[in-house]
Amino acid sequence: MTFPPHEETAADRQARFTPIRTGDDYLTSLRHRFVAVYLFGERIEEPVDHPIIRPSINALRATYELALEDPDLATAYSPLIDARVNRFLHIVESPHDLVMKNRMQRRLGQLTGTCFQRCAGLDTISVLHSITYDIDARHGTTYHARYLEFLKFAQRANIIIGAGMTDPKGDRSKRPGEQVDPDMFLHVTRRTAEGVYVTGAKAHMTGGLNSHWIVVMPTMNLGEGDRAYAVVGAVPGDAAGITYIYGRQSCDTRAMEKGDIDKGNARYGGQETLVVFEDVFIPHNHIFMDGEHEFAQEMVARFTSYHRASYVCKTGLGDVMVGAAAAIAEYNGADQASHVKDKLVEMTHLNETIYSSAIASSHEAKPLASGIYMNDSMLANVCKHNVTRFPYEISRLAQDLAGGLMVTLPSEADFNHEVAGPILRKYLKGRNNVPVEHRARMLRLIENMTLGRNAVGYLTESLHGAGSPQAQRIQILRGMEVERKKGYAKELAGIVDTLPEDTKA
Amino acid sequence: MTFPPHEETAADRQARFTPIRTGDDYLTSLRHRFVAVYLFGERIEEPVDHPIIRPSINALRATYELALEDPDLATAYSPLIDARVNRFLHIVESPHDLVMKNRMQRRLGQLTGTCFQRCAGLDTISVLHSITYDIDARHGTTYHARYLEFLKFAQRANIIIGAGMTDPKGDRSKRPGEQVDPDMFLHVTRRTAEGVYVTGAKAHMTGGLNSHWIVVMPTMNLGEGDRAYAVVGAVPGDAAGITYIYGRQSCDTRAMEKGDIDKGNARYGGQETLVVFEDVFIPHNHIFMDGEHEFAQEMVARFTSYHRASYVCKTGLGDVMVGAAAAIAEYNGADQASHVKDKLVEMTHLNETIYSSAIASSHEAKPLASGIYMNDSMLANVCKHNVTRFPYEISRLAQDLAGGLMVTLPSEADFNHEVAGPILRKYLKGRNNVPVEHRARMLRLIENMTLGRNAVGYLTESLHGAGSPQAQRIQILRGMEVERKKGYAKELAGIVDTLPEDTKA
Amino acid sequence: MTFPPHEETAADRQARFTPIRTGDDYLTSLRHRFVAVYLFGERIEEPVDHPIIRPSINALRATYELALEDPDLATAYSPLIDARVNRFLHIVESPHDLVMKNRMQRRLGQLTGTCFQRCAGLDTISVLHSITYDIDARHGTTYHARYLEFLKFAQRANIIIGAGMTDPKGDRSKRPGEQVDPDMFLHVTRRTAEGVYVTGAKAHMTGGLNSHWIVVMPTMNLGEGDRAYAVVGAVPGDAAGITYIYGRQSCDTRAMEKGDIDKGNARYGGQETLVVFEDVFIPHNHIFMDGEHEFAQEMVARFTSYHRASYVCKTGLGDVMVGAAAAIAEYNGADQASHVKDKLVEMTHLNETIYSSAIASSHEAKPLASGIYMNDSMLANVCKHNVTRFPYEISRLAQDLAGGLMVTLPSEADFNHEVAGPILRKYLKGRNNVPVEHRARMLRLIENMTLGRNAVGYLTESLHGAGSPQAQRIQILRGMEVERKKGYAKELAGIVDTLPEDTKA
Amino acid sequence: MTFPPHEETAADRQARFTPIRTGDDYLTSLRHRFVAVYLFGERIEEPVDHPIIRPSINALRATYELALEDPDLATAYSPLIDARVNRFLHIVESPHDLVMKNRMQRRLGQLTGTCFQRCAGLDTISVLHSITYDIDARHGTTYHARYLEFLKFAQRANIIIGAGMTDPKGDRSKRPGEQVDPDMFLHVTRRTAEGVYVTGAKAHMTGGLNSHWIVVMPTMNLGEGDRAYAVVGAVPGDAAGITYIYGRQSCDTRAMEKGDIDKGNARYGGQETLVVFEDVFIPHNHIFMDGEHEFAQEMVARFTSYHRASYVCKTGLGDVMVGAAAAIAEYNGADQASHVKDKLVEMTHLNETIYSSAIASSHEAKPLASGIYMNDSMLANVCKHNVTRFPYEISRLAQDLAGGLMVTLPSEADFNHEVAGPILRKYLKGRNNVPVEHRARMLRLIENMTLGRNAVGYLTESLHGAGSPQAQRIQILRGMEVERKKGYAKELAGIVDTLPEDTKA
Repeated sequence: MTFPPHEETAADRQARFTPIRTGDDYLTSLRHRFVAVYLFGERIEEPVDHPIIRPSINALRATYELALEDPDLATAYSPLIDARVNRFLHIVESPHDLVMKNRMQRRLGQLTGTCFQRCAGLDTISVLHSITYDIDARHGTTYHARYLEFLKFAQRANIIIGAGMTDPKGDRSKRPGEQVDPDMFLHVTRRTAEGVYVTGAKAHMTGGLNSHWIVVMPTMNLGEGDRAYAVVGAVPGDAAGITYIYGRQSCDTRAMEKGDIDKGNARYGGQETLVVFEDVFIPHNHIFMDGEHEFAQEMVARFTSYHRASYVCKTGLGDVMVGAAAAIAEYNGADQASHVKDKLVEMTHLNETIYSSAIASSHEAKPLASGIYMNDSMLANVCKHNVTRFPYEISRLAQDLAGGLMVTLPSEADFNHEVAGPILRKYLKGRNNVPVEHRARMLRLIENMTLGRNAVGYLTESLHGAGSPQAQRIQILRGMEVERKKGYAKELAGIVDTLPEDTKA
Repeated sequence: MTFPPHEETAADRQARFTPIRTGDDYLTSLRHRFVAVYLFGERIEEPVDHPIIRPSINALRATYELALEDPDLATAYSPLIDARVNRFLHIVESPHDLVMKNRMQRRLGQLTGTCFQRCAGLDTISVLHSITYDIDARHGTTYHARYLEFLKFAQRANIIIGAGMTDPKGDRSKRPGEQVDPDMFLHVTRRTAEGVYVTGAKAHMTGGLNSHWIVVMPTMNLGEGDRAYAVVGAVPGDAAGITYIYGRQSCDTRAMEKGDIDKGNARYGGQETLVVFEDVFIPHNHIFMDGEHEFAQEMVARFTSYHRASYVCKTGLGDVMVGAAAAIAEYNGADQASHVKDKLVEMTHLNETIYSSAIASSHEAKPLASGIYMNDSMLANVCKHNVTRFPYEISRLAQDLAGGLMVTLPSEADFNHEVAGPILRKYLKGRNNVPVEHRARMLRLIENMTLGRNAVGYLTESLHGAGSPQAQRIQILRGMEVERKKGYAKELAGIVDTLPEDTKA
Repeated sequence: MTFPPHEETAADRQARFTPIRTGDDYLTSLRHRFVAVYLFGERIEEPVDHPIIRPSINALRATYELALEDPDLATAYSPLIDARVNRFLHIVESPHDLVMKNRMQRRLGQLTGTCFQRCAGLDTISVLHSITYDIDARHGTTYHARYLEFLKFAQRANIIIGAGMTDPKGDRSKRPGEQVDPDMFLHVTRRTAEGVYVTGAKAHMTGGLNSHWIVVMPTMNLGEGDRAYAVVGAVPGDAAGITYIYGRQSCDTRAMEKGDIDKGNARYGGQETLVVFEDVFIPHNHIFMDGEHEFAQEMVARFTSYHRASYVCKTGLGDVMVGAAAAIAEYNGADQASHVKDKLVEMTHLNETIYSSAIASSHEAKPLASGIYMNDSMLANVCKHNVTRFPYEISRLAQDLAGGLMVTLPSEADFNHEVAGPILRKYLKGRNNVPVEHRARMLRLIENMTLGRNAVGYLTESLHGAGSPQAQRIQILRGMEVERKKGYAKELAGIVDTLPEDTKA
Repeated sequence: MTFPPHEETAADRQARFTPIRTGDDYLTSLRHRFVAVYLFGERIEEPVDHPIIRPSINALRATYELALEDPDLATAYSPLIDARVNRFLHIVESPHDLVMKNRMQRRLGQLTGTCFQRCAGLDTISVLHSITYDIDARHGTTYHARYLEFLKFAQRANIIIGAGMTDPKGDRSKRPGEQVDPDMFLHVTRRTAEGVYVTGAKAHMTGGLNSHWIVVMPTMNLGEGDRAYAVVGAVPGDAAGITYIYGRQSCDTRAMEKGDIDKGNARYGGQETLVVFEDVFIPHNHIFMDGEHEFAQEMVARFTSYHRASYVCKTGLGDVMVGAAAAIAEYNGADQASHVKDKLVEMTHLNETIYSSAIASSHEAKPLASGIYMNDSMLANVCKHNVTRFPYEISRLAQDLAGGLMVTLPSEADFNHEVAGPILRKYLKGRNNVPVEHRARMLRLIENMTLGRNAVGYLTESLHGAGSPQAQRIQILRGMEVERKKGYAKELAGIVDTLPEDTKA
């Protein structure tokens, strides 16, 4: 298959972009973008129709549908455009807004059982609100106004914003400017009167291909010598020079099989892509940082504080796990056993512990200079750190209740075979009145979330997304105020530090 | 020693009761009450001056001192008496009030390193606000008005209210009315025109002896046949017919030794007493439930919801543990070791996880019919359930950082001995510039909190107070909405329940 | 495709069976058996050549190769035929034999990274040695002599014996003889002068399709009314009436993709099949129990005692996990970080804890009446119970060290694409001198063992194989001798039970 | 009290030492030794009669009694003196000897519920067997012969040998020879024709005061400059120049109270002392290393390998905990609850996991050059590392089953009081037919082992004895053979290391 150069540019497409209202609008908006996407060694002509990609689009689509079905939860009034907007595009004006965000995230986890890919974008626009404000205050720049204009456009158009943060990093013992290959961190390669050109890549980009716009930003603290790397800007996802290479996932190709049982969760899935930028242009009005390297660290810190609490979405997946484990225990006829109930309680306890840390972090939010609210960083780190542990245990308990059949069940095709099918229906019958197919479907869902496609999101992404476990430990170390706590201990122990030793012992 | 009958009655003493303002006022208020207290086989004439009892009084005294030192934290405006009152006597009018309560509780944990015994009383007046209101609404009684009068008195006098809840229960397979000995649950034994007389006992009563008034209430759900047990009322702690038997604690007698090092925490301690009621009179105006058995279960449920979040106080003790572990690591010269830092991080992570569940529960409070706010029950149970686990691990990690010397250190008396003292100071010297005494004091504090007197509060009370672990699991089971969660799983698995099997498989 | 009836019977094939010596011999032995196998809705003509099935055959093949490469470890002298035999066919004559079995199991786990499927057969012949002996002793039957003849044949021919134990069970609240469908448990349907015919199914049968012979046996205790179900017998895997339906596994179809990187472990995999018996004939000389229902429970107990210690094989997989985690940390340039080393230590600690329980169980073996040795049941249950927990934590830690790239890495086909390939090699470069391909291969191996095909064996089978966690807890409860331990406690507490209460308190 | 100088020397006393056979003999042997012991700021005239010290002596006494009661378990045939000797003085001649040692240790833990203090001595004579042999082989010295003579004497006299290992260490960043105070590590101060004089101290010395002889040895690896510190020698516990300062323990003074209930375990306790050596003489025939610094590290390594497996004794205490928890659950009337049984199972599972690691280590022992057997070091470290964790969880679960009464129970004196006693017996009655006193005793035993005197041994000593947790992690890191394991992973992943990158990717 060849891909002739298209004459329509991203700008052309942008010009005729229709504001999105429904899930169908969203699907339409992604068609005919002619982006360069590679998957299984082939360039994909229309990602929207690819059976592996579509479930990840469906997950984002659910964010539009929820806004229509439950506007109190999934939309908010934006004074910027004097209208209700999708909550994923809303600037948090109060702790309550952050709590509502968390509730919406949990709800979408319950509805999709996967990563719905829109949180990093929300957390990006949140951090840019305060960072652009703070840079302007220091340097007299006008980033904040540019940012607000962009945000108003985003709110009106109701677009998906992807967060391009994680650079490949190359040799981790070297700083961006010291790398042999300068592209290991995305950076400005040249400047024109109209804007800048950037080159580099963003790895592990969640939902990148499903986004209308991508905001690139630094991944770590930067020094004086890293000015070219201190760039933040918004580019259309279909801008010239952008290439997507699709990350594969456990059991991804089941999406290409016939039938929907073995998929486990046939409708929804996550998406991770490597997004490569080769001389991609960003005009001035879409640049929100350009060289102010000293703000990179704070930008990352605020982003991770927002984003680590966003992992509350996993409690929505946890709810699905609890429900699936309870259902399969019932189908297996074991739901009245005390150890089964006890395991469901343990799963719930762990899941609600995660939830409590997230919403506590949000309730304890404080305003920043720009007027936006920032959730409590310590509790956000605590939330995420529990997310790196508890879903694994919840998953183990779900597998415990599922029974071994989860990994020995024959394929859906065998169920449909004229010889094998009747045998399977005869011998895999559990509790009376429960169709074998229900049992198979529930087992496949648990497989999907603990070993298969959505285990990627429920487990591994829970471990590494928004920072690996050690990253949280470092933040907890920094924030734990050990000297203050030593003071409590000394006071109670009767230790008076100021006396020299000689006069004491 | 003989205890001649005192002519002054509790009512006499009550009449000349001076409102308490300072910690000293509180001490004064407890003197000369002539209560019957037994400890180590003796009746104690003046508990305030007993070296084992005083530290527990000091802990309550700290609640008065904090109100003076940090009124924003430890007092609140009460519209009932149009004045600021100690927060331990304040009716929660908003989620914020509950959050402030939690912050105050953590703070007092940091300041005292022990159980300061005033939370159960606060949670009692909180639950009575709504329960008396609800009983009145159903039965046309006037309990709520009586309650408000009592509360106004309590707020003005700034008294300690003790919560008498846990009956001895006798044979646990039998209901109150079925016990061989009817006194196994506190109950009304006779009635007069002026009020009722009650007999029974309340076990594990925290700070009972240090309270000015005690509110007795049912400990579990009650049936039609248990009407005599469905009694709630307030009695002065020094009322005729009340006897206290003091519970002993690990290392309690160190409080009677010379010196203050080996005590670990010389100033503060907890207190548990068996409080026995023999024909104790409660006049009508102090009765807040009398026979409305059907409200007992809900009363217990609301009380435990409040009280399980009150265990956030243990995060204050956890802060002391983190500080003590960090300090001893420094004194041992090991504070730069990566595994030491990592253990401090783990302790903090666990401690903040507890904190987050508590304040999340408070932030998520909802109003009840009486206007008072009720914290989220699921999250309160989650908080308490983590409290039954994490302090044990925090304690283990603190012992890890302390080193074995914590349990091999000779006594303070040996340090003061002319021969042994110099030897100890020579050989137990750790890092230069750190007096041996500081090391000893810090080790004794950790011993105090992990094995000694305050381990009772930090560990065992964390396990059993406000309900043993299984009690939380039962509540989590009840509240976990498993059918709703099964629905999420079925939806994602593509299971349509209503179709009969024949048409499916 | 049609499968014409073959004129050659299993007996014909058996007659010309050549003893197996090499791995190639084994492959040859499996060809042209014309067994009925269903996979993905198709009957497979030659399983040996199927890309999904072959890795599971390779794993068994490794048991032949190891016998040649390391005969001390993987063979043993059998007095029965006066020759060395594969250790998987050897009767344990001493605790040392059991320890050697465990070492061989760990070794094969290291070599294959998967379930090599031959342990259940070994544990079956082990349990039959003593059970046939014990039945004969009680009933004067001659099962033991038949068994020894069969075993001599098996040792000489060096065959794979599959263990057919787990019946589908149907409605779990009913006993075998009470089921609506009597086939829910395999049972004798008719008898002739030559032998018996059985019908039923064996679920979750590990390596069933790769076995030359299958021994069917009861799955649970049986009562007087279950005599028809109390049957143990050996049948050729290609006997008339046997049908295999292949269980699918996470990522199974990657075995059918081009390239070998994405497979993670291209050579080895596990296998679970549903094996259906429809009127399968067992001649008298291959029947080892026929109606002696009262031995079923003991047979299961002894089998699980052997088999739960066989899960020591997972420590071999654990070794691979430790190695893979260490290697990827090195490739990522993070191997010197203290938290990385600490995680490797934790993984090793957990893995060796499992190992110690298994070999302790073997070392503590005791002889049974038949002369065979039986490992310690309590420690075998402890071993298996740790196996239901620790591999999950080891797996989580391995994913931690792997980094998020494990689940975002594009496919091998993309690495080979002319456009995408160079991009990937440029941007996914980690530490200098480490080829990107090495990094990809190691990530895919970890994916394979924690989410993919071999996660089935390393995780879920660890949970449920040889009995789910609760089955071990029940055994531990039975064996924990709580009365003896109460005695220790009473002795130390100074409690003399025999005194009546009146004279004491 | 003054302590006039005694004319009898340790040598005099040694001369008339009667071989010990019974527990009473042991008590007699400790009397009239005139050692300098300080406890609570006083020099103790006769430690044997001190109520705090006696329980620790009783624990050692049990090692003599067990030898008489169960000689198969607690004695062994010694070819050195051609007689059976107490197993605590026996040279391990086979893996079986080590396993028998472990069984004896568990048994003594069950019988005493505390640390019986004789293991370090046994592990010391074990390590000296091989180390003296190895030094002689290198240096042509005659230590091994001296050692054997000493050992024969010890076996014949049936004495207690204490292990003096842990130096105070002072500033931990400095080596022994670099300390400001050279006594921070025990060292040779002068030499005569007859022997050497040593000065220094040994901290945390378990049962030091109860030993007849003490063997001093280095605590860590030593360098060329530390020759004076590389000294191993045996000295009588009552040698001139030795001073003991007794370490205090949680609840130690309860031993001085009337009654035996509150003591929890009235008969048995542990003992830790600081043992100070001031110019203590060691004649040549009792010197087993003198300057061969290069053997210090290996000596420590072998000692810790032996000693870490000796912590199997804690499984004996664990058995007591399981029994106590089961008993109190029964007394409370809760023993049929499924969660109670489940907790007992968990306690047992953890306890047996520890046991399995220890005996696995012993079964896997290998001979050293001297002919003695050495247990497996990796598994010994794994055992001890589990000991640093599981007793804490077992303890928490025991407290869970005990209920809160464990820490609110009034004193035994109150039970005996004429007023308080009847009240307590009335209200603390649990299940019918269970005397209140039994309940109290069992609660006090659990308190004793989880908070009180024997919690020191069951918890904190489990953490730090034979090396703190990090010490095991370092050993596991050293022994985990990560390169070999990387090899397994690379083989399975298809990575061929030797190919240069260029030809690969």
